[in-house]
Amino acid sequence: MLTEKISASVKERILLPELLDIVMSAEEAASMIKSGMTICTSGFGTGYPKAIPTALAESKHAKNLTLVNGAARGESHLGAMSHAGILKNFFGFLYNEGARNEVNAGSFEFSDLHLGQLISKIKNGVYGKVEYAIIECCKIKEDGSIVPTLSAGTAEAIAEVAEKILLEVNLSIPAEVEGFHDFGIDPFAIIKSPADRLGVPYIKVDTSKIAGIVITDIPDTDLFYPEIAPIYNQIAEQVVSLLDKEISEGRLPEQFTFQSGMGVVANCVMLGLMNKGYKGLKMYTEVLSDQALYAIKEGIISEATTTTLDITPLFFDDVFDNLEFYKKRLVLRPLNITNGATQIISNELVSMNTAWEVDIYGNVNSSHAMGTQMINGLGGSNDYSRNSKISIFTTPSTAKRGLISCIVPMVPHVDSTEHDVDVIATEWGYADLRGKSPKERAMTIIDNCAHPDYRAALHEYFDNAVSLCGPCQTPHDLSKALSWHQKFLETGSMKQD
Amino acid sequence: MLTEKISASVKERILLPELLDIVMSAEEAASMIKSGMTICTSGFGTGYPKAIPTALAESKHAKNLTLVNGAARGESHLGAMSHAGILKNFFGFLYNEGARNEVNAGSFEFSDLHLGQLISKIKNGVYGKVEYAIIECCKIKEDGSIVPTLSAGTAEAIAEVAEKILLEVNLSIPAEVEGFHDFGIDPFAIIKSPADRLGVPYIKVDTSKIAGIVITDIPDTDLFYPEIAPIYNQIAEQVVSLLDKEISEGRLPEQFTFQSGMGVVANCVMLGLMNKGYKGLKMYTEVLSDQALYAIKEGIISEATTTTLDITPLFFDDVFDNLEFYKKRLVLRPLNITNGATQIISNELVSMNTAWEVDIYGNVNSSHAMGTQMINGLGGSNDYSRNSKISIFTTPSTAKRGLISCIVPMVPHVDSTEHDVDVIATEWGYADLRGKSPKERAMTIIDNCAHPDYRAALHEYFDNAVSLCGPCQTPHDLSKALSWHQKFLETGSMKQD
Repeated sequence: MLTEKISASVKERILLPELLDIVMSAEEAASMIKSGMTICTSGFGTGYPKAIPTALAESKHAKNLTLVNGAARGESHLGAMSHAGILKNFFGFLYNEGARNEVNAGSFEFSDLHLGQLISKIKNGVYGKVEYAIIECCKIKEDGSIVPTLSAGTAEAIAEVAEKILLEVNLSIPAEVEGFHDFGIDPFAIIKSPADRLGVPYIKVDTSKIAGIVITDIPDTDLFYPEIAPIYNQIAEQVVSLLDKEISEGRLPEQFTFQSGMGVVANCVMLGLMNKGYKGLKMYTEVLSDQALYAIKEGIISEATTTTLDITPLFFDDVFDNLEFYKKRLVLRPLNITNGATQIISNELVSMNTAWEVDIYGNVNSSHAMGTQMINGLGGSNDYSRNSKISIFTTPSTAKRGLISCIVPMVPHVDSTEHDVDVIATEWGYADLRGKSPKERAMTIIDNCAHPDYRAALHEYFDNAVSLCGPCQTPHDLSKALSWHQKFLETGSMKQD
Repeated sequence: MLTEKISASVKERILLPELLDIVMSAEEAASMIKSGMTICTSGFGTGYPKAIPTALAESKHAKNLTLVNGAARGESHLGAMSHAGILKNFFGFLYNEGARNEVNAGSFEFSDLHLGQLISKIKNGVYGKVEYAIIECCKIKEDGSIVPTLSAGTAEAIAEVAEKILLEVNLSIPAEVEGFHDFGIDPFAIIKSPADRLGVPYIKVDTSKIAGIVITDIPDTDLFYPEIAPIYNQIAEQVVSLLDKEISEGRLPEQFTFQSGMGVVANCVMLGLMNKGYKGLKMYTEVLSDQALYAIKEGIISEATTTTLDITPLFFDDVFDNLEFYKKRLVLRPLNITNGATQIISNELVSMNTAWEVDIYGNVNSSHAMGTQMINGLGGSNDYSRNSKISIFTTPSTAKRGLISCIVPMVPHVDSTEHDVDVIATEWGYADLRGKSPKERAMTIIDNCAHPDYRAALHEYFDNAVSLCGPCQTPHDLSKALSWHQKFLETGSMKQD
């Protein structure tokens, strides 16, 4: 594409004139990527490049690619590339259904990891030499600095590490998003207040590495929240009652700082806090949802740090209509800052994450159905549970219409160990595990959290284990520890006779 | 005891005259402690109070005590109190054989934890109100500040939190130990060089809280290292060959910073580094052993941070004979600093810890024999493995004369998850797990680390799991995942037919 053909609207987005010479089609940009290369992409839920990955998936000229992305959901990104069969490896959080099925069919290799370590692993060369970073942005400034779209994620790090950079300038995101981000921060900076800005709102880049620029106008339209079943409000009520107690007993300030994982429980907790009259809370989190934006508007949350706005199309418009309001209260920071141990510990976070299942001793499985099938990955859940002041995991007490108990004798996969979990909450109650031994934990988890249909069987498992190995540190009957899962695999139900 | 009866040698140790009035017998001090109280004691391996715990154990007037200690080994401390049956709970690292047996018999409750979080848990009230801190020291300064003996551990925090303080002034430790410690540090301080001092070498205390002082001269004589079997040198050779490779490929500086857990493998690695001509390494660790002191003398280690000198009686003398030499090269810091995430991450540590067993996907069990019996606890192993640049776990490939494989299909207890483990080394080789998917990890762990007697059976387990659930993310046959342990419990051997 020649400079003179470029529209005025594009020239408003690319303010360094020499870069107008390398505006090109997605196919041209994609053609630079060769088989076996490692590519790192921007985006965390939202903000991923769309045109170049789609072109790669369509042409299939480059195979055996290693893809690294903070949290990949997009159909036009991980979805298209995994379906095309051009991936050898994926590193990051995997929440695209098609890609998950490909992983569980062994089509490509997936290595799950603590997202808070993704940037250091990229920089330490764990994923090899990074040939290309592909970054979606809404503006390139006069000096070539990049303003990403509505996530921060790994964008700054991959721009630094990659040999070459491809940019997608997305015209569907207003250039006035500039001012949301906070880059160039010391990884050990203490962030005293989530909306304090420490760095600059753009990514400085070596412009000689920019190999091509593609203009797009494809919105992020992948995210939809399911309808809220009553059970999620019941779980949220348990969490709110715990928080009330912590505050009334002086262990938590009234305007505490919290992290909240994705999903309906998180949203219900926010609703619950709202209904209880909480005001001026601070949020320090990896992903910020529709509900959190609403809570900011209502003053329940006074300020927030996140690495992404993982919101539905409706709320994109809300953000664009109220940019200056949100910029004062909301900062998008790199993933190693939002998920950084220093920042999480120093902010004394209350963390709330979703468990897939938990065992009677408090070990949490966040990632593997029946211990074998990848769901999405553990994401940042352990970054927060490992480092927060109060680490809460929530789960419904059962799944599959009661045929699966989410409280089991032993989890067949551990993502957060017994040492990382302070509280477990289900719709029946919560178990406060702090300062309890494994045997004490078993009693409170079974009696407070398990579904009544499974409590007797869990007690029977425990009692039988004690009779086998004595009242030892962690009683187990290894011949039956995984039998509930095995029974489900064989009969479709964990129900014990 | 009246002031005039106090010997000159005691007056040299207690420089605030009013405190001479509360010098008393161990029995008198112990009598202040009542049933149901929470007591926190100084010491981490070495440096624990001896006279008051022994008096408590002998009188048994106070029962149902909650004891909190960083790492409790002493026979005259945790040993005596657990044997006397006066404990309700113990929180900390448990490495006293008698106490371990009591825990596994259910005599008192033990809650294992990440030692890096012990201080924040004490301060957050997880163990309830702390009635007494009992601290061993070698000197009380003019303003009442305390100079502990040869550990830092939790001493500063418990002196701050406790309602009352009892001191044991140990005359067997010279007062000239003053200058070893570094207290009063910001918990998020970046420690650029392990021997840099940031704080003060004594603990400031509210002297009105000091309720009694006991004079002792009981040395720390509990620690002995077992003889080194050749296998440990073979494991150490594997670790050293990995480190050589990391340096030659530019991923590690020649003078890297490392952490090393306790035990013979750690000592052999240090010998191995010495024999390879390494010089000027930095150590940032929780415990520092005889061998590390020797390495400091030889210049292999140029400087070190640790929370304790966990050394044998022979090396106590060496330290006392060379106090000024060691003070320049060695700093004793609080446990939340030596095990702090900020400090571990910013120092880009190579961590080396001992696994009890590992599974084919890289999950590590550090604490539970057969998933049920407590060994010692996980200690700080996960503080380091979770936050270091390269996290190495070592284990012999077998135990019990080959009847136990330390590489198993699934560990029945997880202390460091697959996400926290970069390298596993046995006497047969090492498996570099970085950037590998679970299926890829299984191949390298079995082929490089398992004992040849068990490799075929591990491959068979894996192949059978794949045939059952397909080439999914983490293939397992849940009906057999724990069958090796079950077989050992039933037959005394894991050997597969």
